[in-house]
Amino acid sequence: MRIAILIFDELTALDAVGPYEILARLPNAELTFVAKEPGPKRTDTGALSLNADMAIADLPDPDIVLVPGGQGNRPLMEDEEVLDWLRTAHETTTWTTSVCTGALVLGAAGLLEGKRATTYWVYRERLREFGAEPVVARFVEDGKVLTSAGVSAGIDMALHLAALDVGEDFAKAVQLGIEYDPAPPFDAGSPEKAPPELVELVRGVEQSADA
Amino acid sequence: MRIAILIFDELTALDAVGPYEILARLPNAELTFVAKEPGPKRTDTGALSLNADMAIADLPDPDIVLVPGGQGNRPLMEDEEVLDWLRTAHETTTWTTSVCTGALVLGAAGLLEGKRATTYWVYRERLREFGAEPVVARFVEDGKVLTSAGVSAGIDMALHLAALDVGEDFAKAVQLGIEYDPAPPFDAGSPEKAPPELVELVRGVEQSADA
Repeated sequence: MRIAILIFDELTALDAVGPYEILARLPNAELTFVAKEPGPKRTDTGALSLNADMAIADLPDPDIVLVPGGQGNRPLMEDEEVLDWLRTAHETTTWTTSVCTGALVLGAAGLLEGKRATTYWVYRERLREFGAEPVVARFVEDGKVLTSAGVSAGIDMALHLAALDVGEDFAKAVQLGIEYDPAPPFDAGSPEKAPPELVELVRGVEQSADA
Repeated sequence: MRIAILIFDELTALDAVGPYEILARLPNAELTFVAKEPGPKRTDTGALSLNADMAIADLPDPDIVLVPGGQGNRPLMEDEEVLDWLRTAHETTTWTTSVCTGALVLGAAGLLEGKRATTYWVYRERLREFGAEPVVARFVEDGKVLTSAGVSAGIDMALHLAALDVGEDFAKAVQLGIEYDPAPPFDAGSPEKAPPELVELVRGVEQSADA
């Protein structure tokens, strides 16, 4: 099973690496980090680079495709080579997936039309621009399209995908393998739970970066 | 504040990238992925490489040091250059930290002597070899040494560190920023919670890899 994770400069690393840690363990997985051009991609903090091992042109028909978030994915929303690659891949994928604002790229490719979907909380309403119905959820499955909420939510989505694809026992074994028994020291991980002033602070920082 | 994350071939990517996503956002953070030799390091699944931007020799005195896990860290336990770097760094760090089996490397450097500590559940008892007292916990703080449980636990540890270093509101804002409101689809993330047959399965796979 070929799995393609699309990366680019200014991606949010955890969006990609969370699900990678699970999907790479699927039976017969051949997981590849792909990009328009192979080579190092510098993350949005500037402090890390991940390498794309293959060009998207050389992997036109993955079984699973995953698009992560990060400010660097906005140019992809107008990049016909990337959008065409996604549309073509989607014709034959088993699962077409996104983490965080990766959903905006799926939307720009026309793949969320008429679908229920989710994304990073700051951008949820923008999904309507692509004909999607925004849903407040950790992840949303609609047909073969799986979209997840922000950054860390890709871990939950990937475990769900592992269960769908292989079975619940397999997904549980992987969960144990990555000791995913989360215990955040605070309960501020969603806009519904965080103090309102912090919600506005984070929204402001995010939107100024997106301006 | 200089933060050094030590990487190596056959690391477990999420061990490093989870905390990175939080620590890189600390005020005035200068976070660097370091290795014995700079350059690409291939992860334990073989499907991804991360780049070390600097040699450990060129960053002898970080304020925070983090050692991740993965089978590839076992050779470091006998690598005097790495162990000396850790011992020297530890003399002036604010925090000396590990995720997963990174604790074994801290132990080999003598930094866990007389400390309470934790690590990946499969290896917890091995901490005694280094004079440490194993603790069943998501993360353990003893003096300036912070150790966490396996793989995903580094996220929880890093949020705790962010709160200690900057304050709870800051940590909560980062938690919201990465939408860390975990909702695993299963409750099998620790050996206490997973079905016993899966615990033995994962333990067997892990120990055969370590043989």
